[in-house]
Formats: sequence, C-alpha cells, structure tokens
Amino acid sequence: MQGLGNVQLSGKMLIGQASVTGQEEVIRAINPATNQVLEPAYAGANQDQVDQAASLAWHAFDTYRTVSMASRADFLDCIADEILALGDTLIERAVAESGLPRARIEGERGRTMGQLRLFAQVVRSGDCFDARIDHAMPERSPLPRSDLRLQKIPLGPVAVFGASNFPLAFSVAGGDTASALAAGCPVVVKAHPAHPGTSELVGKAIQSAVRKCHLPDGVFSLIYGAGHFIGGALVSHPLIKAVGFTGSRQGGLALLTIAAQRPEPIPVYAEMSSINPVFVMPDKLVKDAASVASGFVASLAMGAGQFCTNPGLVLLCGEDGADEFIAKASDEVRSLTSQTMLTPGICDAYYQGVNSLAQNAHITQLAAGQRSEQANQCQAHLFVTDATAFLADSTMEQEVFGSSSLIIKCKDMSEAHAVAEKLEGQLTATIQMLDADIEAVRPLLPTLERKVGRILCNGYPTGVEVCHAMVHGGPFPATSDSRTTSVGSAAIDRFLRPVCYQDFPAALLPETVQDANPLSVPQLLNGVLTS
Amino acid sequence: MQGLGNVQLSGKMLIGQASVTGQEEVIRAINPATNQVLEPAYAGANQDQVDQAASLAWHAFDTYRTVSMASRADFLDCIADEILALGDTLIERAVAESGLPRARIEGERGRTMGQLRLFAQVVRSGDCFDARIDHAMPERSPLPRSDLRLQKIPLGPVAVFGASNFPLAFSVAGGDTASALAAGCPVVVKAHPAHPGTSELVGKAIQSAVRKCHLPDGVFSLIYGAGHFIGGALVSHPLIKAVGFTGSRQGGLALLTIAAQRPEPIPVYAEMSSINPVFVMPDKLVKDAASVASGFVASLAMGAGQFCTNPGLVLLCGEDGADEFIAKASDEVRSLTSQTMLTPGICDAYYQGVNSLAQNAHITQLAAGQRSEQANQCQAHLFVTDATAFLADSTMEQEVFGSSSLIIKCKDMSEAHAVAEKLEGQLTATIQMLDADIEAVRPLLPTLERKVGRILCNGYPTGVEVCHAMVHGGPFPATSDSRTTSVGSAAIDRFLRPVCYQDFPAALLPETVQDANPLSVPQLLNGVLTS
Repeated sequence: MQGLGNVQLSGKMLIGQASVTGQEEVIRAINPATNQVLEPAYAGANQDQVDQAASLAWHAFDTYRTVSMASRADFLDCIADEILALGDTLIERAVAESGLPRARIEGERGRTMGQLRLFAQVVRSGDCFDARIDHAMPERSPLPRSDLRLQKIPLGPVAVFGASNFPLAFSVAGGDTASALAAGCPVVVKAHPAHPGTSELVGKAIQSAVRKCHLPDGVFSLIYGAGHFIGGALVSHPLIKAVGFTGSRQGGLALLTIAAQRPEPIPVYAEMSSINPVFVMPDKLVKDAASVASGFVASLAMGAGQFCTNPGLVLLCGEDGADEFIAKASDEVRSLTSQTMLTPGICDAYYQGVNSLAQNAHITQLAAGQRSEQANQCQAHLFVTDATAFLADSTMEQEVFGSSSLIIKCKDMSEAHAVAEKLEGQLTATIQMLDADIEAVRPLLPTLERKVGRILCNGYPTGVEVCHAMVHGGPFPATSDSRTTSVGSAAIDRFLRPVCYQDFPAALLPETVQDANPLSVPQLLNGVLTS
Repeated sequence: MQGLGNVQLSGKMLIGQASVTGQEEVIRAINPATNQVLEPAYAGANQDQVDQAASLAWHAFDTYRTVSMASRADFLDCIADEILALGDTLIERAVAESGLPRARIEGERGRTMGQLRLFAQVVRSGDCFDARIDHAMPERSPLPRSDLRLQKIPLGPVAVFGASNFPLAFSVAGGDTASALAAGCPVVVKAHPAHPGTSELVGKAIQSAVRKCHLPDGVFSLIYGAGHFIGGALVSHPLIKAVGFTGSRQGGLALLTIAAQRPEPIPVYAEMSSINPVFVMPDKLVKDAASVASGFVASLAMGAGQFCTNPGLVLLCGEDGADEFIAKASDEVRSLTSQTMLTPGICDAYYQGVNSLAQNAHITQLAAGQRSEQANQCQAHLFVTDATAFLADSTMEQEVFGSSSLIIKCKDMSEAHAVAEKLEGQLTATIQMLDADIEAVRPLLPTLERKVGRILCNGYPTGVEVCHAMVHGGPFPATSDSRTTSVGSAAIDRFLRPVCYQDFPAALLPETVQDANPLSVPQLLNGVLTS
C-alpha cells in the first residue's frame, strides 16, 4: 500500500478531495514545550468555504449512507491503515504541537486506530440498526395488523470539533468522527487550533481512504478557524444535522446557544466539564489511606491532569485515616515533577483556577509539585476544605483543567452523601472501598447514578476503555445530552434515527429488515430478539 | 377489585394522593356537538402547586425507579384495569367532551389499555435496559481491561402534555405517560383543557393504581391550567427532566423555546405537525385511480381528519389517470356528511386553513362535503394545484387540521421527486403503487427516508399500530427530535440514559448486569448479543 509517510504540510484545508487555502485569520501551532511557533500557517475558512464543505457533505450523504455495510466498515479500517502509514511524521508533529510525550502519542495513535476498527466491527455486526420486524396479522379482529419493519438510518452531515487534549483520539479521526462515519454520516471537522499540522496529516489520511474506497468526496472535509466565527457558521448551517464537541463548558454552552437559535433543532453532543469525585469510604480510609493516596496522586498527575476524567475532588468519608491520607497525598504531590501543558492558554487558565482555590478563605493549600523554568509547565496542586465549606460555596465545584485537586474532609457518610447530592452532573464518580464498606456504599449509589455516567470501584477515573459497555457521558454540565456516550460502541447511536417501513414489497425492503436477514443482523422479531 | 365506576367529578387536581383545588383561572369543558358547557369547573395550578407536584415527583423518583421490574410492570397493568373499571362513566364523559363517536372512544380505551400492557411486557422482557457486559481482561497488554457493565436508568420526572385529539390514548394515561412510567420516571400530566373531566377520571384511575401498588405518592400527578403559564412553569421547572408533548406546531415550538432557556438542557419530545404526503405512482394511477381515490377519501374523513397522520397532500405522479382520480375523489368528498370537531377553537382554525387554501390564486377548490347547521362541524374540503405552483409557495405546506387535503398534479416522477425533496419533515409518506412501479419508487425512497418517520406502501397513513417496529416520529417540524418515536415500544428509550459500572463488587451490581442474569434480560456480552 502507498503510504503517506512523507506527506508535506501545506497549510491548506481539505474540502472533499480538494486542498483549499482559507481566506480568514491565520493560525499557527506553538510548541508548548518551547513556545516556538510552528509553520505552516493555517488560514481559516470563510462562510463560502463552510458552505462548500457542508454542501459537499450533503450531496455525499445519500450515496455514502447506502453503500454496503462491508464497504463502510472497510472504509473505517482503511482510515486506521492510512493513519498508521503516516508513520513518524504524524508522531513527531503531534508531540511538537501538544507537548505530550512520544509514548503517550504512540499509545493514542493505537487507541485511535482501535476505535476505528471497533466501529468497523459494530457496522459489520449490525447491532446498531435496531432492526425490528412485526409481521402482518391479516386475520386480527377488529382490525388486521400491517407488516411493520424498523431500521435506523443516519441523521445527515455531522460537524465535529476536535478536542485539545487528545490530538488524535478525540480530534480529526477521533471518537466523534469514527462513530459518525460508522453511522453513515459525512463529517466536517473543525480542527482544534492547537494542533493544525496533526489535523492536516490525519485529515489527509481520511481523504486518502475516501479516495481508495471510491466514496464520494464530501464524506469528509477538514476546515480551520481562529475565532468563534467558524463554530457558529458550522453549527447554524442548515445542512449540518448534528454536532460533536469535546472541550470547555464555555465553548460547549456557546454552541448550544447557537444551535437553539436554529429554525430546525439538531442534536448537539457537547462533552464539557467534570471534576470526577473520588469517595474514600470509611473502612478503606482507615486501612489503606496511604495506598489510596498514592494511587490518587498518580491518576492526578497523569498527562498533567489534562483529562476530562481527572480526579479533581476527593471526599474523605470519615475522620479516621484522614490525616494519614492527607499527609501521604501531600508528600506525593510535592515529589511530582512539572509537565508541559497543551497550550499557553490552557496553562494560564490552570493557574487562574489554582489561584482562585488558593485565595478562597475556606480552602487550605496542602502541597504543590516541583517548579520548573520551562515554558507552560503544570505544577501540581493539592488543596483541602471541609464539607460544610464546600456545601456553602459553589465556586469550589469549578473544574480546574490540570493536575489540581481538592480534598473534602467529611465527618461521616452523612456529610459525604450531602456533598454527593449537591454536586453537578459528572462524567465519573469513584468509590474506594473494602468489603466492609459495602453497606455504606449501597445508599450512596442511587445518588451517584443520578449524577454521573460511570461509577468505578477501587480504580481511578483516568483511562477510558473503548468497549461496548463504556459510558463517557453524564448529566449536565458534564455533557449536554446524558442519553449518550462519546466513547465506546454505543456512541454510534448519537447519529441514528428510526424509520418504519409498512407493508413494503420485498423488492424494496432494506436488507437489515428482510425476512431472509442476508446481513445476519440482530432482529427483534415480533417482540423476540433473534441474533 | 374495587371499581371506580361511580366516581364523581370533583374539579380538583390530583397532586400525588391529594385532591387539590387550583388557584388560577378556571376552565370548563364544552360539548362541541352542542356548545353546552360541562360542569364542574377546573381551576388551574399556581406556581406553588406546580412546585408541589414536581417536588413530590422528584422525591418519588429514587424509590419508584428501584422497585422490581415485576412491580413496575404490574403497576402498568393495574392502571389498565383501573381505567376499565371506570366503565361507562369514562366513555360518556369522553364522548361529551370530545364529540367523538362512542365506538371510537371505546376503541381508544382498548388502545390505551393495550399500550399500557405492551409497556408492561417491555419492562418484563428487559430489552429496554440495553444491558452490556465487557468482562475484565487482567492479562491484557500493555494495560489490563477493567470489568465494565452498562444499563439504562430513567431520566427523572417527566412532564406530559395531553393531546386534544386522543382524549385517552394520547392524554393522561396515553403513550407518553405509559412509556415514561415504564422507563421508571414519575409523571406530572398537564391535562388538555378540552377534556378536563376525562382527565380527572383517568387521573383517578392512575392515582388508585399507585395506591394499590404501594408506590410513593409522587409517581403521578395531574394538574390543570388555562393559559400559557402552566406549560412554562412545568417545562422550566428544575426538577422536571424531560417533556412529552403532542399538539400544534406553535405550542411545541413555544415549549422548545422555554426549554432552551433552562440552565440545564432537557429533552423535549414534541410531536407537532405533518401533512403526510400520498404518492400515487404512475402505473397505479392509470390502473386503479378510482379505488385509490376512494381509499384516500375514507382516510381523509376518518375522525373528521383530526389525526397527526391525516393525508393532507396527494401527489398524482403522472398525467394518465389524474382526471379520473380527481373526479372520483371529488365525488366521494361531496358525499361526506359533516362531523363534529373536537373544540370550537379547532373548528375555527380548520376553516381558517381551508379559507387560506381557497383564496390562493394557484389553488382550485374541487369539492366540499355536506354542510350542517349543527355546532362545530367539519365540512370536508378537497383542493388541487400543480407541482410548479406548489414548489413556488411554501404556504401550501401548512397543516390544516381536519378533513382537508390538497392534490398536486405532477407531470412525471421528476416533478413528484422535486416536491418530495422540498417537503418539510413528516410523520409519514405513503406510496400507492403496483409492481410495475417498483423501479420508479426505488429512487424516491432515499428522499422519503430523509423526510419522514414511516413509509407505507398501498395503505393510508391514518391508523398507527402500537407495536415494536412502529415509528411515530420524523424530522422537524413533524417532531422536535427525529431520533425517537412516541408510539410503540421504542418510545421508552426517550426517557432512559446509560450508566456504566466499573469493577463493581457482585454485591452491589444491578440485577440487569449480573453474570447470573436473574431477570433473564438480553445482554451484550463482550460484544455478542445473548438473549
């Protein structure tokens, strides 16, 4: 296979198979480890260029959504192959643009490819079609029943906003793109301005896969933009039928506001902010304070804390063992070396958040990690307060994106439960427990189920498995739509809607709902699941 | 069992188990067949009373959602029993308040009970939980995989707005209420002002079922309200987590606007307007013009056309046979006797819509049904235009709620396809065809799939089967959320969201995702569906 390993960065957008120079303000990546500006410049799309991308996507839609499931799956696999074929060019550019270690970027590439291949399997399995058949009952009295069959079809072109913190796995060919393409939706990606070169490279991989798989040009486009214009132009575009976004609460809410002003409502899947409470249960705290403290700090330090699932809140659910936990966690934080953050802007926001906690009269700073004179370094921070103070002050709930966490001392489970009940919606909640804690955990679970998308026992929230049972979602403001997940195979459901076929002649029935079931998909046959 | 057959109307709201007198403006039902005012008066809820209902629902939520699936299913069956136990009291009041014939109301009662029993089956089968299990892979390299399990849980209290046109099947104990209760959500119903007495009776049936099943009071409340206040108070209430609405486009859009201003977004399922195009394909038109015309007019006349799926648009997809179709349909319409409409307001709106079509210079009135001096009568109307005129004038697409329909003469399939492509989102599209039309239908299907929720061959759109494969939904403005259906078992999905349980001790795992599968629900086990 012809690789893309020597591909040169052009600074151009990819509108279908065309390379197009933007007409608006220019962005350049910055290597956050050095503050060095990285060429080339990427000029932003203007309204005409957004129109071109959306229109091309629209015109590709009917063709793309009706290719065989095997072809759609092969396309997803081909994108994974093309990304791998970018070789070191991709790894080096992504490291330079993100400040993330090479091993992390290599791992993330593997995750990105694995995600594409998982969705290829999902398409081949046909689970996602939700095929249902209710056979006719011509003899039924008083009225006969028609023959009714249901399958899910894709919504239409999807706008995807690349995230800063996963330049591969949640960006141009990330989870949103993979699940939308798997659903049969063309995708227009708005590249994250922090990694335009990485975006171009991955965009070229997808563009190449579109060509190799003989799909219509508009299945994929990649555009750039510096300010707010481009987001508004995409989300308000009448030919865009759904939106995937991972980023800040402010950014997500802005897109929701734009979408709410559309004449035609569309789903906006915004994954926004979460502080991911960790509950250290009483018995666990007494018996394992030091080891939980170490595990927690390791999770906090991972990737400079730049994860949606970073543990930003720890509830010590009793008094015995609390001092030991605090002492150990403080020691561990003090020993942490600094890490380069993704962008100067993210680094500034981190210290603003840290300062806001430090200046709160009801919060005590416990420890800070090692300082460094290098650019854009995240110095870890650990704070403590008590439940009474936390319950009285909603500002303590604000996400600080980076390695900062707040410990809440709770006198007992009753205080911990009150804190849980006060929390906003979260992606995750973690319970550190021993068997002896089980009966104390049980009454807490209904509250956590109402508040979060994923509940973990005896782990840490960082590290989101890509599988069938994953939920990376949760009640607002963790996401804008708690009915869905943005990681795992169920993410495909976000981009599908049901259509019913009544009394169709066999010659016109979609394959998924034919009696012969040529695609061997699961079918709910007269109410009974057959697979 | 103790029946409710002699229950007296009180004019009071049902807030949990309490009967409460409203504090706002009073409504009284009107018998549309006579314009007689029906006692008692129903005073509307004030803000405090909305708060009470929502708060009671919220406090019932954790208890109700965690009762056994058998108990939840029994509750739904019990509601059906209690409705039947209302006996003739219910039938007579519903006839008086709606002007609908007794046989129709009796049939609708059967449908309402059938719907409740279907959802009881859905709950017992456990299909709706979407249970998924991905077992741990402790030996996986480079990182082990955790044990991950997913089930769906209910969203929270749901506000349901009763519809005017199905005083039983889409009102207090209708499809929205049944699916929300099946999902595990408490429900606060806002009664439709046209049938407050019917609403009170059915509300008392549900209230009695709550008591008999020993469920918490707040599982169900019923409130009244004359103006717009009550809708806003419910939809903007922070303890309401989803909304089900069936009604006008104006009403649905108003609720969407209120919901968009909430700090926390919630799903609003509004089923609004649809003109349900019928495509008479060329060969069918040539060979069966008269029989299709008769079938179409029968569908148009049913229930005075007061259905979401009323065939408001007929495309004659060729010239041969068109005159015969028009002549026969006109004859049939002229022979139609008038029928009582649901309310004076609906009757006024019908004649406004009819006059607007009649006054359009590019539309010709073909026929009108028989007149009557009785109150609130729907005189059927039939109009004709051509494709060129229709394509140039969007006002022709406005729904006229009642027995009015517009025929579009198309020269050929190309014109018919252009009309299809211009249409707004619809609940249904119908294709009248012969085998010889199959290849002409094929290229039209992708357009129809993008535009509608249900496509029928050789039937008529009125009559919506309650089953597993039904889709009563469709792209905007047919509904506010095309990803769902408001009729059929899939309607339960509207009120559920996924939660993931990671590395849980067996003692704390929900039954749906236990390895032993004590509820025998379908589980997606390591990606393979087991049932």
